[in-house]
Amino acid sequence: MVPMATLSDSMTEMTEILLPNETNTLGRALGGTVLHWMDICAAVASMRFAGHQCVTASMDHVDFVTPIDLGEVAVIEGYVFGANRTSIDVRVDVHAEDPTAGNRRLATTSFFTFVALDDEGRPTPVPELECPTEAEAALREEAVEARHKQLRQVTERIGDSG
Amino acid sequence: MVPMATLSDSMTEMTEILLPNETNTLGRALGGTVLHWMDICAAVASMRFAGHQCVTASMDHVDFVTPIDLGEVAVIEGYVFGANRTSIDVRVDVHAEDPTAGNRRLATTSFFTFVALDDEGRPTPVPELECPTEAEAALREEAVEARHKQLRQVTERIGDSG
Amino acid sequence: MVPMATLSDSMTEMTEILLPNETNTLGRALGGTVLHWMDICAAVASMRFAGHQCVTASMDHVDFVTPIDLGEVAVIEGYVFGANRTSIDVRVDVHAEDPTAGNRRLATTSFFTFVALDDEGRPTPVPELECPTEAEAALREEAVEARHKQLRQVTERIGDSG
Amino acid sequence: MVPMATLSDSMTEMTEILLPNETNTLGRALGGTVLHWMDICAAVASMRFAGHQCVTASMDHVDFVTPIDLGEVAVIEGYVFGANRTSIDVRVDVHAEDPTAGNRRLATTSFFTFVALDDEGRPTPVPELECPTEAEAALREEAVEARHKQLRQVTERIGDSG
Amino acid sequence: MVPMATLSDSMTEMTEILLPNETNTLGRALGGTVLHWMDICAAVASMRFAGHQCVTASMDHVDFVTPIDLGEVAVIEGYVFGANRTSIDVRVDVHAEDPTAGNRRLATTSFFTFVALDDEGRPTPVPELECPTEAEAALREEAVEARHKQLRQVTERIGDSG
Amino acid sequence: MVPMATLSDSMTEMTEILLPNETNTLGRALGGTVLHWMDICAAVASMRFAGHQCVTASMDHVDFVTPIDLGEVAVIEGYVFGANRTSIDVRVDVHAEDPTAGNRRLATTSFFTFVALDDEGRPTPVPELECPTEAEAALREEAVEARHKQLRQVTERIGDSG
Repeated sequence: MVPMATLSDSMTEMTEILLPNETNTLGRALGGTVLHWMDICAAVASMRFAGHQCVTASMDHVDFVTPIDLGEVAVIEGYVFGANRTSIDVRVDVHAEDPTAGNRRLATTSFFTFVALDDEGRPTPVPELECPTEAEAALREEAVEARHKQLRQVTERIGDSG
Repeated sequence: MVPMATLSDSMTEMTEILLPNETNTLGRALGGTVLHWMDICAAVASMRFAGHQCVTASMDHVDFVTPIDLGEVAVIEGYVFGANRTSIDVRVDVHAEDPTAGNRRLATTSFFTFVALDDEGRPTPVPELECPTEAEAALREEAVEARHKQLRQVTERIGDSG
Repeated sequence: MVPMATLSDSMTEMTEILLPNETNTLGRALGGTVLHWMDICAAVASMRFAGHQCVTASMDHVDFVTPIDLGEVAVIEGYVFGANRTSIDVRVDVHAEDPTAGNRRLATTSFFTFVALDDEGRPTPVPELECPTEAEAALREEAVEARHKQLRQVTERIGDSG
Repeated sequence: MVPMATLSDSMTEMTEILLPNETNTLGRALGGTVLHWMDICAAVASMRFAGHQCVTASMDHVDFVTPIDLGEVAVIEGYVFGANRTSIDVRVDVHAEDPTAGNRRLATTSFFTFVALDDEGRPTPVPELECPTEAEAALREEAVEARHKQLRQVTERIGDSG
Repeated sequence: MVPMATLSDSMTEMTEILLPNETNTLGRALGGTVLHWMDICAAVASMRFAGHQCVTASMDHVDFVTPIDLGEVAVIEGYVFGANRTSIDVRVDVHAEDPTAGNRRLATTSFFTFVALDDEGRPTPVPELECPTEAEAALREEAVEARHKQLRQVTERIGDSG
Repeated sequence: MVPMATLSDSMTEMTEILLPNETNTLGRALGGTVLHWMDICAAVASMRFAGHQCVTASMDHVDFVTPIDLGEVAVIEGYVFGANRTSIDVRVDVHAEDPTAGNRRLATTSFFTFVALDDEGRPTPVPELECPTEAEAALREEAVEARHKQLRQVTERIGDSG
């Protein structure tokens, strides 16, 4: 019998204040800072889903849509939207928030693949993804579509410039 | 007219993986690491509520109920449960979670007071706390009671040992 | 025979320059930074006293009396003022200092309880606290009184606002 | 007249030792650590080329081909292979190296786009990319082809799994 | 009239626990970690003496006499032993301490020169060094002699090997 | 038969952006930050040469010739120029670079001695240094001469001031 875990089991929310050492001389978040947070968020979502230590296998294309400024808050949210053998697909969204103004802007979205490892560090099977509620099924669907849409956009853009 | 903000406006959730530099030689979280996370969480909750930069005025007693181990996840949750003139009371709970096992243990709870500051760094009035739903009213009540209960326990203990 | 250690054995002084990453957007020390330093200071004082690895069991109420500004120096001082079975009470004072002006302001004071652990991580007995000099006896007395005074103040304040 | 800069002007090499705080509990580099290094490397390459402050606009897909272990060295190399109006394309390769054994394994490759900014933070034109030597022309060609090849592989894989 | 400051005014003590990220794969302090602490200690001693912001002009030879192990405590002590026009000489000693065993071993000693700067960042005169007590005069003398002795030893050694 | 390694085998280049937490209140690199980078660079050069874990035995005098400003890039370059029994001599140069202006200024130069260790942490023999090309022989010569010249300058200066 294949074990199961739900999309909700994996949901992970991180909140970070952007500190000086994480900004460039314009006072905006370094891209690498945001990427680091996204990877940690996806790792926690993966482990909550898989019940195993998980390591990053890949990250999809990342567009930095809006900058995050010094002193602002970053809200990083992740959930598992796919599972296959020993690997797990995770969507991560980052929002920038001026905590004193209450608004949130999408900063970036991307899609990670993690691999579950056993105690000797070998790939190990992951549960089947269950979406028992309509909300979960919708989130899964949105992630799959957003991933394909992003890939089409990247393909068009690189085809143009390349 | 006094501006208002709800308890829900302030709700803040942080998720952190415990890394090596945040542990002692037994592989357990340093107390100071946990205190640092709690302060950041309370600061974000305060600013979301007040709509102003906020600084820590005080933190109540903290009991470290259960250790957090290397590689585990800490979930830090905070919300505003009181507001008076220029100051804001925030409850913060920390849970330790083995992300590969799915269980959560309460690590610690405490209560912060923050002061809202204007752009020149002077104390500035905060909104009135609204709890439009029953759930919010219950959370406010729980925080007030838990704070008093903790204070009574500390008083008994220090009276004994002092 | 119970081993003994003196209050002087535990005395610990730390000096830190406040760097950009430890400040908020007003250029003042984050509360959590100061709490982290206090915990490290108390941990060293405990281990020097106990002769064992020690972990934070609790920290008392903390009032941030005066801010510490970017580029200023924090002087953190701790000593053991109580010992009972496997636990140790430590007072920690933090002073803010503008090193180019020579003055020091009290930033905060609090009281920690640490537990001594053996090599397997189990609580282990601590020495009896000796105060062979008048100065040590006075420091112990001051700490016990300051702790009770702080607790009374907290009780009054929370009773008012709660 | 359009200013020019060569591919060689942009070449950037970073060397990092993998420290404990940058690893997971298996002692392998966190994905986010590697992403952070890659972004810094690409930022320096961009600024050397553009003569302006540059910010990350996007990063392509990243495959983590081989892990980097605690105590190993990461060598991160970047160069500009495309420039268009206000944006710059940068290739970054990461190799893992056991410094005591002398071998290097490719850990990952990706492609960044940076935008050049003037002193007010607005996009500003970048030089034209010159490849005066055959070696530089070959590096440019390799990057363009590798980018397209990677994109085709990602498209096939996501098409399969999606 | 030339302002004066005493050797005691400059005395600075730092205490640091050696954390995982500051060690190599043998669990010993990285040389650079110790150098960083020494520089901070010397900077604080300089500023306390000069009443101005101070920057590192040079550091003498450093011998790492004994390693500091993970979880041990480093005690870093510095004081000004010379002052001339706009520059200040500072001695820094580092001791390694197993806090659970109570012993201290000398880890290293060196001698820094700092320059005092005014608010525009230009060199500015420093006070005359006063040693009003015999203890201070002895510390000054010891530092001058130790610096010359170290230099003679380095000269012999490099003469041999060079 | 004694194993051999070449000067080129040891060559190491690091590139770092100077971030806020690594600067003083004038926005210039802390001396200790630069010393830390130099030590890491020398450690990697040593390990690449020796084929063993290496630890810092000593660092020569360091003059900070020119400051490095916030947002600038530091380029740290090291190579082995001497090897004797279990110890290795490494030259390290640091250049400050404004990446948007293309110029480099020498920030500092120094000379480290590292000791090679086996898996039990005991000193172990290092290869013989080979300089098969004229360029390598010239670099070795330059390092030996620069080290002696620096030592003579230090001796004159300390003789004057001491």
